[in-house]
Amino acid sequence: MSEKINDYINRYRKIVDKKLVHHIENLSIPEQLKQSMLYSVEAGGKRLRPILLIASFESFADDFNYAISSCIALEMIHTYSLIHDDLPAMDDDDYRRGKPTNHKVFDEATAILAGDALLTYSFELIAGDSLLNDNQKVEIIKMLSATSGPKGMVAGQFLDMEAETRQVTVEELENIHALKTGKLLEFAMYAGAFLGGASQTQLQHLKHFAYYLGLIFQVQDDILDVTGDQEKLGKPVGSDEGNDKSTYPKLLGLDGAMDKKNEYVEKAYQELEKAEAKSSVLKELTDYFSNRDH
Amino acid sequence: MSEKINDYINRYRKIVDKKLVHHIENLSIPEQLKQSMLYSVEAGGKRLRPILLIASFESFADDFNYAISSCIALEMIHTYSLIHDDLPAMDDDDYRRGKPTNHKVFDEATAILAGDALLTYSFELIAGDSLLNDNQKVEIIKMLSATSGPKGMVAGQFLDMEAETRQVTVEELENIHALKTGKLLEFAMYAGAFLGGASQTQLQHLKHFAYYLGLIFQVQDDILDVTGDQEKLGKPVGSDEGNDKSTYPKLLGLDGAMDKKNEYVEKAYQELEKAEAKSSVLKELTDYFSNRDH
Repeated sequence: MSEKINDYINRYRKIVDKKLVHHIENLSIPEQLKQSMLYSVEAGGKRLRPILLIASFESFADDFNYAISSCIALEMIHTYSLIHDDLPAMDDDDYRRGKPTNHKVFDEATAILAGDALLTYSFELIAGDSLLNDNQKVEIIKMLSATSGPKGMVAGQFLDMEAETRQVTVEELENIHALKTGKLLEFAMYAGAFLGGASQTQLQHLKHFAYYLGLIFQVQDDILDVTGDQEKLGKPVGSDEGNDKSTYPKLLGLDGAMDKKNEYVEKAYQELEKAEAKSSVLKELTDYFSNRDH
Repeated sequence: MSEKINDYINRYRKIVDKKLVHHIENLSIPEQLKQSMLYSVEAGGKRLRPILLIASFESFADDFNYAISSCIALEMIHTYSLIHDDLPAMDDDDYRRGKPTNHKVFDEATAILAGDALLTYSFELIAGDSLLNDNQKVEIIKMLSATSGPKGMVAGQFLDMEAETRQVTVEELENIHALKTGKLLEFAMYAGAFLGGASQTQLQHLKHFAYYLGLIFQVQDDILDVTGDQEKLGKPVGSDEGNDKSTYPKLLGLDGAMDKKNEYVEKAYQELEKAEAKSSVLKELTDYFSNRDH
């Protein structure tokens, strides 16, 4: 891992962190609702989606400020999905990233509403961005709602819940992850490149790149659940083993999962090459995703 | 009640019903998720919000098709809010409009996701409307997210939950209803008039009109809980009495609540007059709201 990519990630993580908190703190809303939104937004997210969005933008243009509202909206939607996924009626998780989940700190009703609030506010944020023109706003909102809604992330979460108690095929597993994780990565790639002025052909290749990136992300997650370090992960290792959840190592063995990951990495590289992006940051981020230890 | 206003309501209700169902049926999404969305959307809503939006539009222009995507988005957001409000962690209601609530027919996880899906899809619908220009889409999305999000309806629901177990003042009650019910009515008035080409001054008066309409709506709800007909209401009469919920009759007595309602009706009329709308439909709808028996 080059030092450069870590610097890149840290620099933009700080910018995203600051803007995210700023936007929520400035809201005139009931105090406890605000605290609940802030709690999950501040709960140690790695901001990988916004960083990917900026990297996609910077593959085609320079002033990243044009991409910031899309970054913040994306991270708010990611955060809302975590809050709702953790609810007792859903995955029933008490901890996330080593901290108590939103409904454990506040209560279920507040957690549901904080999620609804983050989701809704993300669209207001883009519609109100003074840097973007109306056409850019409409395109971003179209893509954000399509990738996060019933045809995208929400469908993925639904299918994931449905699959939890039965054995699924590798194809089904890929489809679930492509929706649940891949769709927001697709938005990150698309929104960044679109705002950076990429062509339709370039956008298509980055969409395919995002698809493989989502799969890489998920295989590595599954691998880390077997081989990872509990301290670094912020959650118990082997937590997938005890339940009936389908994972790559369970379906293909650990070596098979590693092979699958490398296959996805190769395909991701190919798409990147076809997209003719001007910087190598996206390639370095792919390596980072593929080899991360938490 | 004139026959004319009932015809008006029935005509547009049918149009809204059909479009709503059409948009959801056409989605390529997991079947159970679609059924859950359809169930609540079809569960006998009166479509008063979309009808108000059309009436507001027709106060300034003719072809109501320009207002349809805003109507459908508004009703989807209203429906999502009912699904989430009914959840065990929120109001814990088993019935709504005489039918089992979403989470009783499906399950809690599906109900949460169906709500998230309706909310997200509402923005996609407006962004994808081929009749509107980009500026209109951005303005509508700005207003819809602002009125339904953490500064609007979500704040109202949060404060309502908070207030449930204590006595509140009339002023606090008004604030809760202005957010929880009034904000979406404000959207109905604003979106319709904006798309119809109303001036800034006219928009302001319609905003105030919506505020009073929301209060009329709520006082009448509270009055019906005391004097209503269980059959027509689709829920038990007197259900507010048994709990600690603050209502207008409890705070002011039944006669006091009636007086308050008439005061609001007068103020609503005044704002309508100042808005100089070209039709009398909004005035007739105000009477309809004020005197409805279910």
